[in-house]
Amino acid sequence: MIDNIAIIGRGNVAVHLAKAFQSVGKAVASVNPYTLENLPDKADLYLICVSDNAVESVAERLAPHVDEHAIIAHTAGSIPLEILSKYSGPKGVLYPLQTFSKSRNLDYSTIPFFIEGSDDDTETDLISLSSAVSARVETADNFRRKLIHLSAVFACNFANRMMDIADEILQRDGLDISILLPLIKETLKKIEFMNPHDAQTGPAVRRDSKVIHSHLQQLLSFGMISEAKLYNLISESIIESHT
Amino acid sequence: MIDNIAIIGRGNVAVHLAKAFQSVGKAVASVNPYTLENLPDKADLYLICVSDNAVESVAERLAPHVDEHAIIAHTAGSIPLEILSKYSGPKGVLYPLQTFSKSRNLDYSTIPFFIEGSDDDTETDLISLSSAVSARVETADNFRRKLIHLSAVFACNFANRMMDIADEILQRDGLDISILLPLIKETLKKIEFMNPHDAQTGPAVRRDSKVIHSHLQQLLSFGMISEAKLYNLISESIIESHT
Repeated sequence: MIDNIAIIGRGNVAVHLAKAFQSVGKAVASVNPYTLENLPDKADLYLICVSDNAVESVAERLAPHVDEHAIIAHTAGSIPLEILSKYSGPKGVLYPLQTFSKSRNLDYSTIPFFIEGSDDDTETDLISLSSAVSARVETADNFRRKLIHLSAVFACNFANRMMDIADEILQRDGLDISILLPLIKETLKKIEFMNPHDAQTGPAVRRDSKVIHSHLQQLLSFGMISEAKLYNLISESIIESHT
Repeated sequence: MIDNIAIIGRGNVAVHLAKAFQSVGKAVASVNPYTLENLPDKADLYLICVSDNAVESVAERLAPHVDEHAIIAHTAGSIPLEILSKYSGPKGVLYPLQTFSKSRNLDYSTIPFFIEGSDDDTETDLISLSSAVSARVETADNFRRKLIHLSAVFACNFANRMMDIADEILQRDGLDISILLPLIKETLKKIEFMNPHDAQTGPAVRRDSKVIHSHLQQLLSFGMISEAKLYNLISESIIESHT
C-alpha cells in the first residue's frame, strides 16, 4: 500500500500528479530533481517525473538515498524500466497518457494510466495507487508503451500538423482555423461511437479523382509543394486502406 | 426578405437546414429532388441540397417551374455558382460548413455559413437569412469555397486518417483508439486558444531523431510500410515548417 509519495520533478507532469494523488488522500512531498532538496527519508514511492533524457541521471543520484523496501518508478512512456537498474529495490513505470499544461484543470479519472512493475507486488501497488485516481488503469510493458507513444504521435502530433496546414491554407484568403472548429469537433465526436476507419470521409475514400486533382493544383498554385506531396501520399494511404 | 423556402433534397443537409430555418420562423416546403413533388408555386428561395453530382441536373429541371423573381441557390461547397446559369433569375450559393448526420442535434448558431449571390440584392437576402440562424456568416466566392474545402480535407479527413492509423497500431497489442481520446480532446482544446503552429508538439518539432528512428523501425517491424513513409514525410513537413 502506497501512502507516502515523493515526486521528484518540478514540471507539468509532476505538478499534476502531485495534485491528483493529494486529492485521494496521499501524502506527497515535492522534491527538487537537481539538488534532491526536500527528499523524505521514508516514502513508499519515489516517482521520477522529469524529461526523458534526465531520468537515468536522476535515478542514479536518487538510489543511494532510498531504503530498498521503497519503490522507485518513473513516468516516461518511452523509457524502459531497466533504466532504473542501478537501484536494487523494487522498480516500476507509471505512465499517465495525457498532455499536461500547468494552467489547465484536468479530470484525472478519465486519464489512462499504464503500469509496469519489476515484480508482482510492485505492479499491484502501483495499480492500486493509480486506480485511486483513474478509472482506466492497465499494465504496459516497454513494447506496449512504445506502441502507445507511436500511436499518439499519429493521433495528436500529426493530426495537429494537419490542422496547421489547414490554417496555412485559410490564411491565403484572410481566414483561419477558427472557421473549421465546429466541423473538427463534430468529426471527432464521431470517433467516440464509431471507429475512425468507418468514420473516414472525403474525396480520397470516395475516389473522387476530380476533386483530388483540383486540390493538388490549388496547393501547387500556392507554392505549397511539400503539402501537395503530403496530400497525395495521405490520399493514397486512405484509398489503400479502403480497398 | 426571404420568408418562404423550398428545400429540394432529402439528405442530411436538407433535413438539418429545414429544421434550422423553421426554428427561426421561416415557412419551409420539403421537395423531392427526383420528381419535384411538393414544389411550391411561390417560394422566395429554392434551395438545392443534393449531392455535388446532382446539382446541375436538378437545377435544369427546376428552373422552368420557378418564377424569375425567386432565388435559386445550392449548398455545395465545391460547385461554382455558374452551374445554375440555365436559370435567368437571381442565383446564389449558401454553403454551411458542417458535417451533418441525421441522428445528431446541432447548434446551428456556431456553424459558419458562406454566401455568394449573383447580384448584391441576392447576396444581402441570403446573408440575412443565414444570419437568422448562425452567428458566423461570411461571403465566399468559388475561390474561397475551394480553399475552405481543401483546408477541411486536411483538418478533418486527413486528421481522421491519422486517428485511423493510430487505431491500427494500437490493435497490434489488443488496444484501440479509445485510450487516446482524452489526449486527443486535450490536444484539440489547445487550438481553441492558440494557433496549431504554436501548439505543435512531438518528436519531430523537438528534432528527436532517436525517437523518430525508433518509431520508423517499429512501423517497419509491423509491415506498415506506407505508414512509415507517411511518418517520415509528415515529420519532415513539421521540421520544415518549424525552421
